[in-house]
Amino acid sequence: MEINDPETLAEVAAAFARYETALVTNDVPVLDELFWDSPHTLRFGVGENLYGYAEIREFRAARPSAGLAREIFNTVITTYGRDFATANTEFRREGSAKTGRQSQTWMRTPGGWRVVSAHVSLLG
Amino acid sequence: MEINDPETLAEVAAAFARYETALVTNDVPVLDELFWDSPHTLRFGVGENLYGYAEIREFRAARPSAGLAREIFNTVITTYGRDFATANTEFRREGSAKTGRQSQTWMRTPGGWRVVSAHVSLLG
Repeated sequence: MEINDPETLAEVAAAFARYETALVTNDVPVLDELFWDSPHTLRFGVGENLYGYAEIREFRAARPSAGLAREIFNTVITTYGRDFATANTEFRREGSAKTGRQSQTWMRTPGGWRVVSAHVSLLG
Repeated sequence: MEINDPETLAEVAAAFARYETALVTNDVPVLDELFWDSPHTLRFGVGENLYGYAEIREFRAARPSAGLAREIFNTVITTYGRDFATANTEFRREGSAKTGRQSQTWMRTPGGWRVVSAHVSLLG
Protein backbone atom coordinates (compact mmCIF):
# COMPACT_ATOMS: atom_id res chain seq x y z
CA MET A 1 0.00 0.00 0.00
CA GLU A 2 1.50 3.30 -1.05
CA ILE A 3 1.92 5.80 1.76
CA ASN A 4 1.56 9.48 0.89
CA ASP A 5 1.02 9.14 -2.84
CA PRO A 6 1.48 12.81 -3.81
CA GLU A 7 -1.78 13.15 -5.75
CA THR A 8 -3.84 11.56 -2.98
CA LEU A 9 -2.08 13.63 -0.34
CA ALA A 10 -2.85 16.84 -2.26
CA GLU A 11 -6.53 15.88 -2.46
CA VAL A 12 -6.80 15.20 1.25
CA ALA A 13 -4.82 18.34 2.13
CA ALA A 14 -7.31 20.36 0.10
CA ALA A 15 -10.28 18.69 1.82
CA PHE A 16 -8.66 19.25 5.22
CA ALA A 17 -8.07 22.95 4.45
CA ARG A 18 -11.65 23.32 3.28
CA TYR A 19 -12.86 21.79 6.53
CA GLU A 20 -10.65 24.11 8.60
CA THR A 21 -11.97 27.20 6.83
CA ALA A 22 -15.55 25.97 7.25
CA LEU A 23 -14.93 25.32 10.93
CA VAL A 24 -13.58 28.74 11.84
CA THR A 25 -16.25 30.51 9.77
CA ASN A 26 -18.99 28.18 11.06
CA ASP A 27 -19.94 27.26 7.49
CA VAL A 28 -22.34 24.55 8.59
CA PRO A 29 -23.33 23.31 5.09
CA VAL A 30 -19.67 22.59 4.25
CA LEU A 31 -19.05 20.95 7.63
CA ASP A 32 -22.10 18.77 7.04
CA GLU A 33 -20.95 17.95 3.51
CA LEU A 34 -17.49 16.85 4.65
CA PHE A 35 -18.72 14.33 7.20
CA TRP A 36 -19.75 10.93 5.83
CA ASP A 37 -23.55 10.70 5.76
CA SER A 38 -23.78 7.37 7.56
CA PRO A 39 -25.00 5.97 10.87
CA HIS A 40 -21.42 4.65 11.29
CA THR A 41 -19.91 8.14 11.39
CA LEU A 42 -18.77 9.19 14.83
CA ARG A 43 -17.37 12.33 16.43
CA PHE A 44 -15.93 12.61 19.92
CA GLY A 45 -15.79 16.34 20.69
CA VAL A 46 -14.28 18.22 23.62
CA GLY A 47 -17.57 18.01 25.51
CA GLU A 48 -19.77 15.50 23.67
CA ASN A 49 -19.80 12.05 22.08
CA LEU A 50 -21.82 11.98 18.86
CA TYR A 51 -22.86 8.71 17.22
CA GLY A 52 -24.05 8.79 13.62
CA TYR A 53 -24.32 11.54 11.04
CA ALA A 54 -27.68 12.78 12.37
CA GLU A 55 -26.28 13.55 15.84
CA ILE A 56 -23.28 15.33 14.33
CA ARG A 57 -25.47 17.47 12.08
CA GLU A 58 -27.75 18.36 14.98
CA PHE A 59 -24.73 19.43 17.03
CA ARG A 60 -23.43 21.67 14.22
CA ALA A 61 -26.80 23.32 13.78
CA ALA A 62 -27.07 24.14 17.49
CA ARG A 63 -23.48 25.29 18.00
CA PRO A 64 -22.82 28.97 18.80
CA SER A 65 -20.77 30.51 16.03
CA ALA A 66 -18.65 32.76 18.29
CA GLY A 67 -15.13 31.94 19.44
CA LEU A 68 -14.33 29.36 16.78
CA ALA A 69 -11.14 31.06 15.53
CA ARG A 70 -8.01 29.02 16.15
CA GLU A 71 -4.43 28.54 15.08
CA ILE A 72 -3.39 25.05 13.97
CA PHE A 73 0.12 23.60 14.14
CA ASN A 74 1.97 20.29 13.91
CA THR A 75 -0.52 19.15 11.27
CA VAL A 76 0.19 15.64 9.98
CA ILE A 77 -1.78 14.26 7.04
CA THR A 78 -0.98 10.70 5.97
CA THR A 79 -2.58 8.79 3.10
CA TYR A 80 -2.72 5.00 2.82
CA GLY A 81 -3.30 3.81 -0.72
CA ARG A 82 -5.66 6.02 -2.71
CA ASP A 83 -8.80 5.87 -0.61
CA PHE A 84 -7.83 6.39 3.03
CA ALA A 85 -6.17 9.05 5.11
CA THR A 86 -5.68 10.34 8.61
CA ALA A 87 -5.36 14.03 9.46
CA ASN A 88 -4.12 15.08 12.89
CA THR A 89 -3.41 18.55 14.13
CA GLU A 90 -2.85 20.49 17.29
CA PHE A 91 -4.62 23.81 17.77
CA ARG A 92 -4.82 26.78 20.09
CA ARG A 93 -7.79 29.08 20.57
CA GLU A 94 -7.43 32.71 21.53
CA GLY A 95 -7.92 33.09 25.26
CA SER A 96 -7.36 29.41 26.02
CA ALA A 97 -4.16 28.19 27.64
CA LYS A 98 -4.83 24.57 26.68
CA THR A 99 -3.60 22.90 23.52
CA GLY A 100 -6.27 21.13 21.49
CA ARG A 101 -5.84 18.03 19.36
CA GLN A 102 -8.01 17.08 16.38
CA SER A 103 -7.88 13.66 14.75
CA GLN A 104 -9.84 12.72 11.64
CA THR A 105 -10.02 9.60 9.50
CA TRP A 106 -10.95 10.37 5.89
CA MET A 107 -12.33 8.04 3.21
CA ARG A 108 -12.75 8.62 -0.52
CA THR A 109 -16.41 8.31 -1.47
CA PRO A 110 -18.09 8.72 -4.89
CA GLY A 111 -18.94 12.29 -3.78
CA GLY A 112 -15.42 13.17 -2.60
CA TRP A 113 -13.36 12.81 0.58
CA ARG A 114 -15.36 12.48 3.78
CA VAL A 115 -14.55 12.28 7.51
CA VAL A 116 -15.70 8.90 8.84
CA SER A 117 -14.43 9.35 12.40
CA ALA A 118 -13.22 12.34 14.40
CA HIS A 119 -11.91 13.03 17.88
CA VAL A 120 -11.25 16.47 19.35
CA SER A 121 -9.90 17.06 22.85
CA LEU A 122 -7.81 19.34 25.01
CA LEU A 123 -4.45 18.15 26.28
CA GLY A 124 -4.99 17.30 29.96
CA MET B 1 -16.34 -0.04 -0.86
CA GLU B 2 -17.86 -2.66 1.39
CA ILE B 3 -18.58 -1.45 4.91
CA ASN B 4 -18.31 -4.02 7.70
CA ASP B 5 -17.47 -7.06 5.62
CA PRO B 6 -18.01 -9.75 8.29
CA GLU B 7 -14.63 -11.45 7.88
CA THR B 8 -12.72 -8.15 8.00
CA LEU B 9 -14.77 -6.98 10.96
CA ALA B 10 -13.99 -10.19 12.86
CA GLU B 11 -10.28 -9.73 12.22
CA VAL B 12 -10.26 -6.15 13.48
CA ALA B 13 -12.43 -7.03 16.48
CA ALA B 14 -9.88 -9.69 17.41
CA ALA B 15 -6.99 -7.25 17.05
CA PHE B 16 -8.88 -4.65 19.08
CA ALA B 17 -9.59 -7.19 21.86
CA ARG B 18 -5.95 -8.22 21.86
CA TYR B 19 -4.93 -4.58 22.25
CA GLU B 20 -7.37 -4.05 25.11
CA THR B 21 -6.06 -7.07 27.01
CA ALA B 22 -2.48 -5.93 26.44
CA LEU B 23 -3.35 -2.44 27.64
CA VAL B 24 -4.91 -3.43 30.95
CA THR B 25 -2.18 -5.99 31.67
CA ASN B 26 0.55 -3.58 30.49
CA ASP B 27 1.82 -6.17 28.00
CA VAL B 28 4.25 -3.76 26.38
CA PRO B 29 5.55 -6.13 23.66
CA VAL B 30 2.01 -6.67 22.34
CA LEU B 31 1.21 -2.95 22.55
CA ASP B 32 4.39 -2.25 20.59
CA GLU B 33 3.53 -4.95 18.06
CA LEU B 34 0.06 -3.56 17.40
CA PHE B 35 1.19 -0.03 16.56
CA TRP B 36 2.46 0.51 13.04
CA ASP B 37 6.27 0.73 13.09
CA SER B 38 6.50 3.96 11.10
CA PRO B 39 7.54 7.58 11.60
CA HIS B 40 4.00 8.44 10.39
CA THR B 41 2.32 6.73 13.37
CA LEU B 42 0.87 9.13 15.87
CA ARG B 43 -0.77 8.88 19.28
CA PHE B 44 -2.49 11.70 21.14
CA GLY B 45 -2.86 10.51 24.75
CA VAL B 46 -4.66 12.05 27.70
CA GLY B 47 -1.54 13.93 28.72
CA GLU B 48 0.90 13.70 25.79
CA ASN B 49 1.22 14.03 22.02
CA LEU B 50 3.49 11.38 20.53
CA TYR B 51 4.80 11.63 16.96
CA GLY B 52 6.26 8.52 15.35
CA TYR B 53 6.59 4.93 16.48
CA ALA B 54 9.78 5.60 18.47
CA GLU B 55 8.09 8.17 20.74
CA ILE B 56 5.12 5.84 21.31
CA ARG B 57 7.40 2.93 22.24
CA GLU B 58 9.42 5.10 24.60
CA PHE B 59 6.20 6.22 26.32
CA ARG B 60 5.03 2.61 26.75
CA ALA B 61 8.35 1.54 28.23
CA ALA B 62 8.29 4.36 30.79
CA ARG B 63 4.62 4.08 31.77
CA PRO B 64 3.75 2.92 35.30
CA SER B 65 1.85 -0.36 35.14
CA ALA B 66 -0.52 0.39 38.04
CA GLY B 67 -4.09 1.62 37.61
CA LEU B 68 -4.58 0.57 33.99
CA ALA B 69 -7.74 -1.49 34.59
CA ARG B 70 -10.83 -0.09 32.90
CA GLU B 71 -14.27 -0.95 31.67
CA ILE B 72 -15.08 -0.22 28.03
CA PHE B 73 -18.53 0.49 26.58
CA ASN B 74 -20.21 1.88 23.44
CA THR B 75 -17.47 0.26 21.35
CA VAL B 76 -17.92 0.86 17.62
CA ILE B 77 -15.68 -0.91 15.12
CA THR B 78 -16.23 -0.11 11.45
CA THR B 79 -14.33 -1.57 8.50
CA TYR B 80 -14.02 0.07 5.08
CA GLY B 81 -13.11 -2.39 2.36
CA ARG B 82 -10.69 -5.10 3.46
CA ASP B 83 -7.70 -3.06 4.63
CA PHE B 84 -8.97 -0.20 6.75
CA ALA B 85 -10.91 0.21 9.97
CA THR B 86 -11.74 2.58 12.79
CA ALA B 87 -12.29 1.47 16.39
CA ASN B 88 -13.83 3.84 18.89
CA THR B 89 -14.78 3.17 22.45
CA GLU B 90 -15.67 4.91 25.67
CA PHE B 91 -14.09 3.75 28.92
CA ARG B 92 -14.19 4.29 32.65
CA ARG B 93 -11.39 3.70 35.12
CA GLU B 94 -11.97 2.72 38.72
CA GLY B 95 -11.79 5.78 40.93
CA SER B 96 -12.26 8.23 38.07
CA ALA B 97 -15.52 10.09 37.53
CA LYS B 98 -14.61 11.09 33.99
CA THR B 99 -15.51 9.14 30.89
CA GLY B 100 -12.63 8.36 28.56
CA ARG B 101 -12.74 8.07 24.80
CA GLN B 102 -10.31 6.07 22.66
CA SER B 103 -10.16 6.35 18.88
CA GLN B 104 -7.93 4.20 16.70
CA THR B 105 -7.45 3.92 12.95
CA TRP B 106 -6.28 0.45 11.90
CA MET B 107 -4.60 -0.66 8.67
CA ARG B 108 -3.92 -4.15 7.36
CA THR B 109 -0.18 -4.67 6.90
CA PRO B 110 1.74 -7.74 5.71
CA GLY B 111 2.35 -8.53 9.41
CA GLY B 112 -1.28 -8.09 10.47
CA TRP B 113 -3.56 -5.27 11.57
CA ARG B 114 -1.80 -2.23 13.03
CA VAL B 115 -2.89 1.06 14.63
CA VAL B 116 -1.70 3.94 12.44
CA SER B 117 -3.26 6.74 14.50
CA ALA B 118 -4.76 6.93 17.98
CA HIS B 119 -6.35 9.55 20.19
CA VAL B 120 -7.28 9.07 23.85
CA SER B 121 -8.92 11.74 25.99
CA LEU B 122 -11.28 12.38 28.86
CA LEU B 123 -14.67 13.93 28.20
CA GLY B 124 -14.38 17.57 29.35
